[in-house]
Amino acid sequence: MKLPFYHIDDIIKTALKEDVNYLDISSCFILDETHRSTARYIARADGILCGLDAALRVFTLLDGTSAFETFFQDGDEIKKGDIIARVSCKTTALLQGERTSLNLLQHMSGVATMTNAAMHAVAGTNASVAETRKTLPGLRVLQKYAVLCGGGKNHRFNLSDAAMLKDNHIDAGGGITKAVTLLREKAGHTVKIEVETRNLDEVREALQAGADIIMLDNMGIAEMAEAVSMVNGRALTEASGDVTLDNIREVAGTGVDIISMGALTHSVKAFNVSLKIEKEPT
Amino acid sequence: MKLPFYHIDDIIKTALKEDVNYLDISSCFILDETHRSTARYIARADGILCGLDAALRVFTLLDGTSAFETFFQDGDEIKKGDIIARVSCKTTALLQGERTSLNLLQHMSGVATMTNAAMHAVAGTNASVAETRKTLPGLRVLQKYAVLCGGGKNHRFNLSDAAMLKDNHIDAGGGITKAVTLLREKAGHTVKIEVETRNLDEVREALQAGADIIMLDNMGIAEMAEAVSMVNGRALTEASGDVTLDNIREVAGTGVDIISMGALTHSVKAFNVSLKIEKEPT
Amino acid sequence: MKLPFYHIDDIIKTALKEDVNYLDISSCFILDETHRSTARYIARADGILCGLDAALRVFTLLDGTSAFETFFQDGDEIKKGDIIARVSCKTTALLQGERTSLNLLQHMSGVATMTNAAMHAVAGTNASVAETRKTLPGLRVLQKYAVLCGGGKNHRFNLSDAAMLKDNHIDAGGGITKAVTLLREKAGHTVKIEVETRNLDEVREALQAGADIIMLDNMGIAEMAEAVSMVNGRALTEASGDVTLDNIREVAGTGVDIISMGALTHSVKAFNVSLKIEKEPT
Amino acid sequence: MKLPFYHIDDIIKTALKEDVNYLDISSCFILDETHRSTARYIARADGILCGLDAALRVFTLLDGTSAFETFFQDGDEIKKGDIIARVSCKTTALLQGERTSLNLLQHMSGVATMTNAAMHAVAGTNASVAETRKTLPGLRVLQKYAVLCGGGKNHRFNLSDAAMLKDNHIDAGGGITKAVTLLREKAGHTVKIEVETRNLDEVREALQAGADIIMLDNMGIAEMAEAVSMVNGRALTEASGDVTLDNIREVAGTGVDIISMGALTHSVKAFNVSLKIEKEPT
Amino acid sequence: MKLPFYHIDDIIKTALKEDVNYLDISSCFILDETHRSTARYIARADGILCGLDAALRVFTLLDGTSAFETFFQDGDEIKKGDIIARVSCKTTALLQGERTSLNLLQHMSGVATMTNAAMHAVAGTNASVAETRKTLPGLRVLQKYAVLCGGGKNHRFNLSDAAMLKDNHIDAGGGITKAVTLLREKAGHTVKIEVETRNLDEVREALQAGADIIMLDNMGIAEMAEAVSMVNGRALTEASGDVTLDNIREVAGTGVDIISMGALTHSVKAFNVSLKIEKEPT
Amino acid sequence: MKLPFYHIDDIIKTALKEDVNYLDISSCFILDETHRSTARYIARADGILCGLDAALRVFTLLDGTSAFETFFQDGDEIKKGDIIARVSCKTTALLQGERTSLNLLQHMSGVATMTNAAMHAVAGTNASVAETRKTLPGLRVLQKYAVLCGGGKNHRFNLSDAAMLKDNHIDAGGGITKAVTLLREKAGHTVKIEVETRNLDEVREALQAGADIIMLDNMGIAEMAEAVSMVNGRALTEASGDVTLDNIREVAGTGVDIISMGALTHSVKAFNVSLKIEKEPT
Repeated sequence: MKLPFYHIDDIIKTALKEDVNYLDISSCFILDETHRSTARYIARADGILCGLDAALRVFTLLDGTSAFETFFQDGDEIKKGDIIARVSCKTTALLQGERTSLNLLQHMSGVATMTNAAMHAVAGTNASVAETRKTLPGLRVLQKYAVLCGGGKNHRFNLSDAAMLKDNHIDAGGGITKAVTLLREKAGHTVKIEVETRNLDEVREALQAGADIIMLDNMGIAEMAEAVSMVNGRALTEASGDVTLDNIREVAGTGVDIISMGALTHSVKAFNVSLKIEKEPT
Repeated sequence: MKLPFYHIDDIIKTALKEDVNYLDISSCFILDETHRSTARYIARADGILCGLDAALRVFTLLDGTSAFETFFQDGDEIKKGDIIARVSCKTTALLQGERTSLNLLQHMSGVATMTNAAMHAVAGTNASVAETRKTLPGLRVLQKYAVLCGGGKNHRFNLSDAAMLKDNHIDAGGGITKAVTLLREKAGHTVKIEVETRNLDEVREALQAGADIIMLDNMGIAEMAEAVSMVNGRALTEASGDVTLDNIREVAGTGVDIISMGALTHSVKAFNVSLKIEKEPT
Repeated sequence: MKLPFYHIDDIIKTALKEDVNYLDISSCFILDETHRSTARYIARADGILCGLDAALRVFTLLDGTSAFETFFQDGDEIKKGDIIARVSCKTTALLQGERTSLNLLQHMSGVATMTNAAMHAVAGTNASVAETRKTLPGLRVLQKYAVLCGGGKNHRFNLSDAAMLKDNHIDAGGGITKAVTLLREKAGHTVKIEVETRNLDEVREALQAGADIIMLDNMGIAEMAEAVSMVNGRALTEASGDVTLDNIREVAGTGVDIISMGALTHSVKAFNVSLKIEKEPT
Repeated sequence: MKLPFYHIDDIIKTALKEDVNYLDISSCFILDETHRSTARYIARADGILCGLDAALRVFTLLDGTSAFETFFQDGDEIKKGDIIARVSCKTTALLQGERTSLNLLQHMSGVATMTNAAMHAVAGTNASVAETRKTLPGLRVLQKYAVLCGGGKNHRFNLSDAAMLKDNHIDAGGGITKAVTLLREKAGHTVKIEVETRNLDEVREALQAGADIIMLDNMGIAEMAEAVSMVNGRALTEASGDVTLDNIREVAGTGVDIISMGALTHSVKAFNVSLKIEKEPT
Repeated sequence: MKLPFYHIDDIIKTALKEDVNYLDISSCFILDETHRSTARYIARADGILCGLDAALRVFTLLDGTSAFETFFQDGDEIKKGDIIARVSCKTTALLQGERTSLNLLQHMSGVATMTNAAMHAVAGTNASVAETRKTLPGLRVLQKYAVLCGGGKNHRFNLSDAAMLKDNHIDAGGGITKAVTLLREKAGHTVKIEVETRNLDEVREALQAGADIIMLDNMGIAEMAEAVSMVNGRALTEASGDVTLDNIREVAGTGVDIISMGALTHSVKAFNVSLKIEKEPT
Repeated sequence: MKLPFYHIDDIIKTALKEDVNYLDISSCFILDETHRSTARYIARADGILCGLDAALRVFTLLDGTSAFETFFQDGDEIKKGDIIARVSCKTTALLQGERTSLNLLQHMSGVATMTNAAMHAVAGTNASVAETRKTLPGLRVLQKYAVLCGGGKNHRFNLSDAAMLKDNHIDAGGGITKAVTLLREKAGHTVKIEVETRNLDEVREALQAGADIIMLDNMGIAEMAEAVSMVNGRALTEASGDVTLDNIREVAGTGVDIISMGALTHSVKAFNVSLKIEKEPT
């Protein structure tokens, strides 16, 4: 599982233009262009690694002679103090690319680590954890991939690939039944239809209308459990609404199939990694 | 203070391509293209507003007939329940743009709100709060602007506009004094030189070498205070290294001029805002 | 149902750069920049209109004062000789944009018209007609939209939004059952799984493995009918492989749900439309 | 004769973003990233090959370790069943790139094949076959190149590189003579001037005005022959207007120098090529 | 004659990103966003105006409410002290866009002014003045247009639209005659063929081979005159090689049709224009 | 000191698209794609080399098998007749890339050479020479780098990285003192503040207000000297306004620290370099 090169390279070039732009003036007047260094990525916390390909690709783009040794890969559990990888390249490239490389790695590992914590919290239940469309502009690809690396599952990628009927659609369409029926008639055969419901009556109607997925939106635990029981496997159920690491286990206990968490991508805590140049022996 | 249109529009188009791509299939088969709605942005927490221009611009780009009423502007303090603005446009545009609009507003207000909390924490001291280069790829412009809206100050924008000498530069340059001297000779006259120091000896040398700014990197509180006292206003001092809202007041107490916090941009907690369609009276 | 502005505008700008590049030298030295004309789009054949928004948008981009009268809209049936729309703008803009405007309109109407013919051919059966991923580079959005305008349905937009297991996946995954099971476990809950089958044994296995859609690939009519009968509504069935307007009715007669036709997008016959400047009365 | 790398690579990246976008979910959860395959391109019809460089480049961009064996090159005649080339690369890259590679190859070979048929039809006459500006948005470079590979000649690339005076220019310029004279005075010395004529009077005037090329637009065969005879080599003559493979020989018989056919690029029939993975011996 | 909007807007956006990037920090903290100013463009020398549309477009893009009064247009002769135009817009937009606007106007007017001087120098002769492909990267469109505004004529736009055979082509092609013949056979009918010649023998051969244009490359005045006389109107003649304003009259005296000057675009002297804010009466 | 790859590659691709676009028709029908040549860059004047990496990169992008020998590097003094470098690649690539390669090299070396002349003119004084923001659209990075190679120093890169208060800011801010104070309070700690002054009173006020740099704008030599003396090292002083190679020595004699010259980038004289294919021995 690898992200396509065009996403990775485009994001890195954008990041380097932001961070370097013209010249790294701290380095370009002081460092010899031919001087080379080796540096190591060191985990500063426990978590799940994600983004290593992208982090290393930064140096390949800056210096075609960059060489790498990797000790972990995306999705691996890492511990504080672990050496994740080593990079050898021109020192000027190392200093130019360091921040961009770490920004990518820390953000993606942050998403993966939080996702993994959520997966651990629901272990043993029926539930999977998924992100939402509450992603950061331009970073959806990276964030969705990090959710996978953390053990989560991906929700729809965008508005074109699956349908979700919210109250506005339902009102405009003349009720759940009519809206689902209309959409089933028009949308492609690969499209699943999800219906957002706020109470048991809506769940019942969505089920009868033939929804593929029923979202239980901001319901209480008891009501959610009842909804799951009513659905009884005839559709997938998704819990949504202010789910946190604190309450996710309880939500999972209702038997829902999917729990979607906006925080996985909208409120990411960077995972702490450092990149240290190895000192040559004296 | 407004972000340039080209940044805003480019970021919005990227976000819409991610989020809509081909067609909003939930809406396009159900909603009438001519139907219009009005929706309101409502704060779901207390904080500092940021990103409203960008959030509204989403709808202008999707529907040139969009109209707005705004009750707050970027940098304003908002309270839970406040109606921030109202947008009137085609319902299809509203549903297509909703997520992109909120993703921008929630992230930028999140940065501004955390920055503001840090500024409050250091109120009454000499210190200002600044972000670092630990920004998210492609979002630096938005994040730096949000720091300003939150009452913080901006650190250098990129590697081209100010110099910071770290240990690698210093080693390569033959010590602090030589490196600063060399850089002063080569770099443009608008460039300030900052030197990263780890102990009082380095602070002293940086000061004598004529550094404009001296970074006190990961020093203890007592050492930092001593450094500030040694510098005695002959250079600006910047505290750096794992500063949090919990310890920032203590750091500020040392008398430093600037406290830089990576978390302002690398670990943002989204600020909760919703966009609700106003129901027509029945 | 409208294509997003960013797709339309980007495609038009690309087309104009190709077709005009520097200056329309036939016009720029002869025509007065202030001279205006009115022109009418006239259908030169019977078919289904598609691409009118894009065709007119060309002139708005070239000349902000362009004005339009439209007598039909996308999806409408048009007859040879029908006046589709009228555009009034600077004559220089009209001559610069004419070819780009018509190229868009003729291609998109060509796709819609062929799709519509296929839909007519299967009228009264259970089958819908869908395009494939055999689209022209950079034009998928336009082509898929034209299929909808022609009365067809859209297959998956890209490799990210639905799964289709072909023999290579199945071999690599250890057989249909294992591959479907593995994918169901890993892929997101909004993803449907289609399995490509070449004989009744594979159909049976795909059905038991829980495939959402079963593709009957290059089967004969009798075998296809038997497959549909075996599936008996427990999955959607899709016929694929060298379907043409000549044999589609027969294929539809097997009872399949979907017939996918590569020719809808890979072998498009342009629909003939002309744009004629109205002569002023003398 | 090779298309510039920037066109090829840009078109391929656009096509891959359309077709893959985020992840090839059918493959990424099932296939081992290190698994490699070899596949062969096989002609499914007789025709002229075009686009092989582009088709193979897809795999180089997806997987830098891709290796190729080619048995034909652009412009070669190929027969049904011919193995055109072999590609060896990661299986994941093969499945991701297959559709994009074939879409390019099939479209370009389709253009070349139709062009070649037209060239064969006029063999032995004075006429060459050329495409028009009726190309598909974004694909002009590919289509023009395919016309060359099919044995045709290229008409002007865009509005900046040669002049063609149509009735609107002529009316605005005050008649053919004045318009040609004005343009000759203003346009660069490398620019040829073509005049569109609808009858023999216009042909005569264009000739006297010094047109380099005289287009005989939608004339009958007899009139066209008379026009060619009148021009008598003092200008190039171009036949235009609903030329098909059925009537092209008759048109060529009039003695015209160039026959331009919109259908070469606006109504392309894809040339059938398949890409089959070679099974390993068991 | 107007440059296409896509060139103008793309160049302006690129220039603004270079010149402003994040925020105009000199203005954004001091000026009121609602404050408006009026400024005038004043010529600081005598010359030919070029680039006014682009110069004003900068402000429209920065501030949609910008309004203009123009007193001259592209191609007009302007005198030192002339007020060229007035712009009224937000003061912040004025200060952000000032440099970009002037950089465009000064460069383009510089090209037009030098071209015009060359045209004056050859007045009364047969010769026209043209630029070459020695243009600045990314600015060819602007520079070619400025040559037209200065009264010059445009040489070919790029390598795709006219052929020029240099010694390398001729050597590879087996001599002038063979190379011209081969190219005439392969190249499109709208393509003119120019042959670079270095002596009278080559001129004679190029003429006999049917070259459309014969370049007299770095010949002395007498030889050039003899060449023109030999050609005697059967082809166009172009003088090339270190032509300056000092020697151009003499070159024109040889009777050549075209004199191409690299300096028109590779060694441009900016034309001095200032943009002054009008002071309000006190 | 090397320009980032993304700037170089993007500028080259833009330049090649301008100059080649579709096909180099002079070469593609005549030259054998496999034929290789070696060519040498020869200086046609004395000056400072700049842009060699970019000039050679053109060929690497066109032909991955290109090989180089370089005898000088950026910043080196070169003499008329010097062989700067040799390139070996496909002849088609050589002819396609020649003009783009030389356009880059000649412009950048032109900037470096003029800068160097200015530096020589001020040798022995306190002054450094810097460019301004009067750069050509899209070429700022190349031009600024060329100034460095010529021995000059860089002024601020853009409006975001240093502040310069002009009369409009000062008027809006309520005078020099207030404007500087306000800006110091708001702008980041890495930002230097320059104040533009027109007389000694303004110099005095700027100095007292704490300006980092004081621009002496269009002052006479005597006044400038007095200003420098007044400032007496407490701020940097910058002379600006119509400085030429003729008067720069006199300006430097006033003791200013920096002399900024717009002409370094807005009125560049191309440095003459040729690229000659080496003839094979016969």
